[in-house]
Amino acid sequence: MTTLKDLQTPALILDAGRLDRNLERMAAKARSLGVALRPHLKTSKCWDVARRQLTTPQGPATVSTLKEAEYFASHGVKDMIYAVGIAPAKLARVAAVNAQGADLKVIFDNEAAGRAISDFCERQGVRIRALLEIDCDGHRSGLRPESPELIEVAKSLRPGSGAELAGVLTHAGGSYNATSPEDIRRRAHEERDGVVRAAERLRAAGLPCPIVSVGSTPTATFGDNLEGVTELRCGVYAFFDLFMLGLGVCRQSDLALSVLVTVIGHQKEKNWVITDGGWMALSRDRGTASQKLDQGYGLVADISGEPVPEDLIVVSANQEHGIISSRDGSAFDLERYPVGTMLRIFPNHACPTAAQHPQYYVVDDGTEVRAVWPRIYGW
Amino acid sequence: MTTLKDLQTPALILDAGRLDRNLERMAAKARSLGVALRPHLKTSKCWDVARRQLTTPQGPATVSTLKEAEYFASHGVKDMIYAVGIAPAKLARVAAVNAQGADLKVIFDNEAAGRAISDFCERQGVRIRALLEIDCDGHRSGLRPESPELIEVAKSLRPGSGAELAGVLTHAGGSYNATSPEDIRRRAHEERDGVVRAAERLRAAGLPCPIVSVGSTPTATFGDNLEGVTELRCGVYAFFDLFMLGLGVCRQSDLALSVLVTVIGHQKEKNWVITDGGWMALSRDRGTASQKLDQGYGLVADISGEPVPEDLIVVSANQEHGIISSRDGSAFDLERYPVGTMLRIFPNHACPTAAQHPQYYVVDDGTEVRAVWPRIYGW
Repeated sequence: MTTLKDLQTPALILDAGRLDRNLERMAAKARSLGVALRPHLKTSKCWDVARRQLTTPQGPATVSTLKEAEYFASHGVKDMIYAVGIAPAKLARVAAVNAQGADLKVIFDNEAAGRAISDFCERQGVRIRALLEIDCDGHRSGLRPESPELIEVAKSLRPGSGAELAGVLTHAGGSYNATSPEDIRRRAHEERDGVVRAAERLRAAGLPCPIVSVGSTPTATFGDNLEGVTELRCGVYAFFDLFMLGLGVCRQSDLALSVLVTVIGHQKEKNWVITDGGWMALSRDRGTASQKLDQGYGLVADISGEPVPEDLIVVSANQEHGIISSRDGSAFDLERYPVGTMLRIFPNHACPTAAQHPQYYVVDDGTEVRAVWPRIYGW
Repeated sequence: MTTLKDLQTPALILDAGRLDRNLERMAAKARSLGVALRPHLKTSKCWDVARRQLTTPQGPATVSTLKEAEYFASHGVKDMIYAVGIAPAKLARVAAVNAQGADLKVIFDNEAAGRAISDFCERQGVRIRALLEIDCDGHRSGLRPESPELIEVAKSLRPGSGAELAGVLTHAGGSYNATSPEDIRRRAHEERDGVVRAAERLRAAGLPCPIVSVGSTPTATFGDNLEGVTELRCGVYAFFDLFMLGLGVCRQSDLALSVLVTVIGHQKEKNWVITDGGWMALSRDRGTASQKLDQGYGLVADISGEPVPEDLIVVSANQEHGIISSRDGSAFDLERYPVGTMLRIFPNHACPTAAQHPQYYVVDDGTEVRAVWPRIYGW
């Protein structure tokens, strides 16, 4: 039997019990809202996680890179949306995935991209379905629901070219800056209202709009009405992280992802415990720096995943060194953490932290390693 | 002929001409100071870079993980220092590398680690050389040169056990916070003085100290006296980055590493150009946020690597989206950057940015891709 004590550190630990509960909770939420769940697989980039997460082995699923699309297609996933505005030079890879039986959809928010999709389909004699990206909160890409260009851009997918309008999609990324559950609920309403309004405008102009897609983990958690919406996309809910905890979107006992590290030394006068878990293992993400409770580079737990009683965080990190100290700088008994002690660090943001590691070591509410799940990276 | 225009983005671009000039400059500096150069291979994690960088194919070299040690050993590198305080559970991997003919040295700064090395060597009948880590500026690990524990900790490597004291090592990581070249030079003197003082104390106590090792790219660049030091370690000088540019350690024309991205959309009223280069490709590193000139997530150049005339930076990033705008928020002609345009982003910090990518696409002052060099990751 392999346990966490047998692992070389740093190592990425996934608690499968917490994962399963997180997955079930969101699946139930989607069912209660009467929409399909199209999980975003960019958080895990791992088939072993995805197959637990998808409502059918064929999808629906969301991906953030074509590498993910190719990888998940190789595992039999068919219904996918590549949810980053398409660059024309990527269409050949999209077509190659679809040539193997998938229905990989792309998104776009401008006429140049729409024309490029149409031209490509016409030239290659292929069909590609595309969703129009809607900007529901001003945080990034997309057309505003009331944009005068909306219809014109949608029509840049030329009928008969092989390019087909598959619907509208939005992402309430602004919810990451919300200040309370009520604020998140308000943003969830804006997200729904915006994308449904865009769908109505397209339909009124005689255009098809079968898919109406929303999603972010915060708005999915607190949203209570998805009338007119057909599907929910979200990703980080599978693992959760300190940033979501700070937003009030999960509880500490939902945090499924941590990084196992080993104590390698101390600086006694400074109340520092030094570990081999630096930013290469934790990522450079400092998302909680903007929240009420700054968690440094991560919250310190013992090897079993229980936060240590001294309220320790990773106050600083170099490439392969983490410096642990108390949150308020007060002294604590360093001798409780001798050289060789293993600790688990809950990270700020699950997506970049997981991305630093080639695999997950899977436990289930304990320290026995029950499986090793590989993940992909790159583009 | 493959050119950058043929690549799928985001992609990591390495300018080999700049790399070679950076390598030669630091090699000349080490020669002029009369010390060996032991490059830190953690920046590139790539044999194709390392073989240009090492003074002999067998080393000396510095690594930050045992994965690097194993990888470079497989390419014939023998003389290596694993420059992160050793965790006792890692000694078996160190011994395995050495069993294949390498001389992989470890570092330690406490008695528990010293005893663990001695116990391991005695039990396994192997020899492991270890350097005592010295803290020259209070930024991280190591014993202060004047520490009362210095001799005692050194002696925790028990004579006859197979554990051998190989010398002292320090890293002036505090130089990353320096405010001027003069400040860096002062820190270079402190780095040298501290480690040489520790070496003298060990020798006065009858202990061996053949290696006296210093190094950081800033102190190596501005330092002018390494009397008593035997070797110089540094890493990021191979590629350089915006953080080093902000410190005055390199020129813009020395920046060898960039990330190729593609424009996927715009938000005209906000003067935003949206690309497919988010923090997954650039890393979450925001090091220049603490410098005089905040470069956001990176400085924008055209496909040939020439910074664009509008002084654009990546002002914000999501996982697979980068938002480009002017540094001062002023309007510029977005039509100069239509959908499909390829740009190159110079990153804040070469080490974490390179770590996000499976390979380097190598150019030489142009856009022709002359080689693809793989890199390793993980532990």
